Amino acid sequence: MEKIRPHTLSGFMELLPAPQLQMEAVMQVLRETYALYGFTPLDTPAIEAADVLLAKGGGETEKQIYRFQKGDGDLALRFDLTVPLAKYVALHYNELTFPFRRYQIGKVYRGERAQRGRFREFYQADIDVIGDGRLSVANEAEIPSVIYRTFSRLGLKRFQIRVNNRKILNGFYAMLGLGEKSGDIMRAVDKLDKIGPEKLKAILLDDCGLTEAQADEILSFITIRGTNAEVLSALEGYRGRNETLDLGLDELRAVTQYLSAFGVPEENFAVDLTIARGLDYYTGTVYETTLLDHPEIGSVCSGGRYDNLAEYYTDRQLPGVGISIGLTRLFYVLNEQNMLAAGHDSPADVLIVPMTDDLGPAVRLATGLREAGVRAQLYTENRKFKQKIQYADKLHIPFVAFLGEDEIAAGTVSVKRLATAEQQTLRPEDAAKLILAAAQDAKKQTILK
Amino acid sequence: MEKIRPHTLSGFMELLPAPQLQMEAVMQVLRETYALYGFTPLDTPAIEAADVLLAKGGGETEKQIYRFQKGDGDLALRFDLTVPLAKYVALHYNELTFPFRRYQIGKVYRGERAQRGRFREFYQADIDVIGDGRLSVANEAEIPSVIYRTFSRLGLKRFQIRVNNRKILNGFYAMLGLGEKSGDIMRAVDKLDKIGPEKLKAILLDDCGLTEAQADEILSFITIRGTNAEVLSALEGYRGRNETLDLGLDELRAVTQYLSAFGVPEENFAVDLTIARGLDYYTGTVYETTLLDHPEIGSVCSGGRYDNLAEYYTDRQLPGVGISIGLTRLFYVLNEQNMLAAGHDSPADVLIVPMTDDLGPAVRLATGLREAGVRAQLYTENRKFKQKIQYADKLHIPFVAFLGEDEIAAGTVSVKRLATAEQQTLRPEDAAKLILAAAQDAKKQTILK
Repeated sequence: MEKIRPHTLSGFMELLPAPQLQMEAVMQVLRETYALYGFTPLDTPAIEAADVLLAKGGGETEKQIYRFQKGDGDLALRFDLTVPLAKYVALHYNELTFPFRRYQIGKVYRGERAQRGRFREFYQADIDVIGDGRLSVANEAEIPSVIYRTFSRLGLKRFQIRVNNRKILNGFYAMLGLGEKSGDIMRAVDKLDKIGPEKLKAILLDDCGLTEAQADEILSFITIRGTNAEVLSALEGYRGRNETLDLGLDELRAVTQYLSAFGVPEENFAVDLTIARGLDYYTGTVYETTLLDHPEIGSVCSGGRYDNLAEYYTDRQLPGVGISIGLTRLFYVLNEQNMLAAGHDSPADVLIVPMTDDLGPAVRLATGLREAGVRAQLYTENRKFKQKIQYADKLHIPFVAFLGEDEIAAGTVSVKRLATAEQQTLRPEDAAKLILAAAQDAKKQTILK
Repeated sequence: MEKIRPHTLSGFMELLPAPQLQMEAVMQVLRETYALYGFTPLDTPAIEAADVLLAKGGGETEKQIYRFQKGDGDLALRFDLTVPLAKYVALHYNELTFPFRRYQIGKVYRGERAQRGRFREFYQADIDVIGDGRLSVANEAEIPSVIYRTFSRLGLKRFQIRVNNRKILNGFYAMLGLGEKSGDIMRAVDKLDKIGPEKLKAILLDDCGLTEAQADEILSFITIRGTNAEVLSALEGYRGRNETLDLGLDELRAVTQYLSAFGVPEENFAVDLTIARGLDYYTGTVYETTLLDHPEIGSVCSGGRYDNLAEYYTDRQLPGVGISIGLTRLFYVLNEQNMLAAGHDSPADVLIVPMTDDLGPAVRLATGLREAGVRAQLYTENRKFKQKIQYADKLHIPFVAFLGEDEIAAGTVSVKRLATAEQQTLRPEDAAKLILAAAQDAKKQTILK
């Protein structure tokens, strides 16, 4: 028979079993952490009507989208989880209770040019809080706590949540009479880390057409550095010159005020006036999160406050705040950087190897272990003994349990820990305890080194 | 601004938050139960190259598939999880360890005619064990145990796992000289439950062209009933007349032999000679699972043994055994039949309501509760007290924690259980214990009534 060459499309992540187990562990941490804050899981279709997905229209989105006809339907695959959320909230408005806090971990699709580390199908892991007409700034203050707890639980230590407020930026540029140019300026400022202050100044003068005085004022503003208290204190020097800036400063104070009560250490948080977020749609607090040892990756968790989630679908004012983790890319980077710890990559806690023709005792042992919560795999293939041990070893299964005539007669089982080659003969209930304790210890280890 | 009407495509399930929480609980039970048997999670792309997905080609599949161009790619959405598994195993053969046991819970797409209870996007939850060249029949014996444990953990009691063996059927029909007609006959026999033996006999005579003697022999064979032991004993009466039948009988004995060791009660299992499964590709044991109080739904978990998983991609012989749950449809039916229990539908264990302007104490309480594992939501909107309680009530959040001046001064918190209106003032650590204990009790409850 003629064979079809099996292949997976480029730009589509397909993991081998061991890293997939680690990916699942990451997702489980995200689900559990988001749930601790009262976010409810949501699952929307991957396919939507094209007019719904493209309500905002235009730009890169339209070029990258997977769009197709089926019957008389003009359909498209979602390219983010925000547009489906806006649709969901507008559609189910009367059945929802506000503030509506939802998380969604789902695949999205963008037909980008394929390149290493770029994906066409990738998971986003989003949380959002949506208010009905209004939403307290306390929700913006809580977001860094969610980010901190999520990354800490994964085992990351050297990361920083950077926060700014769009009102401060908008107010500041309006104050300089540069309101209309603020978009161009912010895009230029965004490059500060890469190009340094001198080149930035040249761009501000030459490309943006600012005066020397304006450029200097912007540079001194965006290079305000120090502890959160020092930055806030320096910002107070601008108070009273622009209402929007003052409002932004109040919001930034509210966001930083409860940080320690939310359990976020000072070293994992920084007010950073260079953060703007590209999207116009943010109107208040904005967030970026960087890995301090891998600044080249850029932000691994970003988001912010917006005033109008669903303006393309409804006249209702639905303000919100949310963040998104680009999970597939993050996992890819963590794996590439060799940051995934051992453990969390075994499909079973024990491999049961029957040594007699009658499988009954081994099956009963497996059943008992499973009832105790042990992930127990029965090995029933007719292979050499050595191959059975190698099987456990290859799959990183930590224990092998042997059941021969002697053990069956004595009502015991021989349990070998492969890492140490240590072997004990135990009653089944004691074997369960031993294996379960080791499994629980392994589970407590963080997923990242 | 002109608005786009927000809508979700017909045939695409989109749940409200409370049922979505129940759906997530169902998925978590599936993940945990599959893992107890050493199945490793897998996640393959939803989009594949069309030639890969359609390697087998033909039939209903091709009509229903979502297929489209992107760039120069001829792409399609997966319509099941078996073809992607075949591709995965053929593609990654050298990196896998066999037997390869995987589970996958993922969305698949079929552009069927939309009708109530039929979905175009739906979850399948599959497990498969794939051998390299050979695979012991013990794997077939283990499958009913996975099915039993999965449905039991969901809280189902009145269900039956029906098992047959294709070799018995093929051997039996060959023995009657009806090998070539066996496909037609099995399709007719499949209707026995619906049309009764008399109409079936008429079909066998008129449509299949059998003799009276052949039809009678088939009817007496497929209506063999009784305990597993009785059915097996009746089948022994056919032994020695056809080699394939004899082999199937041995396999069926092997599958039933360890049932009680696997913890499957006799009442949840039946050898049923009418089960054939439509797909030609099954070659040994076949499974169906029916809800005894809802026979109209048909099988909710089906599968079987096959000899050649990936024959369209590779010459390697890759036998396997697997089952699939049509999860979206199953959930839809359970919900429609009002079989979902209360509980499992709350996004938080406690709603914290601050009663002072300074949110510090409430934030610290939330942080402490979360560290203890309590899903704690802070309510910080400026609404009337009554509305805050209603919020908790609408979301089925079982506890509300109040923090006023008195509580803050005393270092306590007032905790109200909404179901009983019972209120206590406690130290935060005792509040955590109370709420966590209730949450753990709720979690232990099965998802189904």
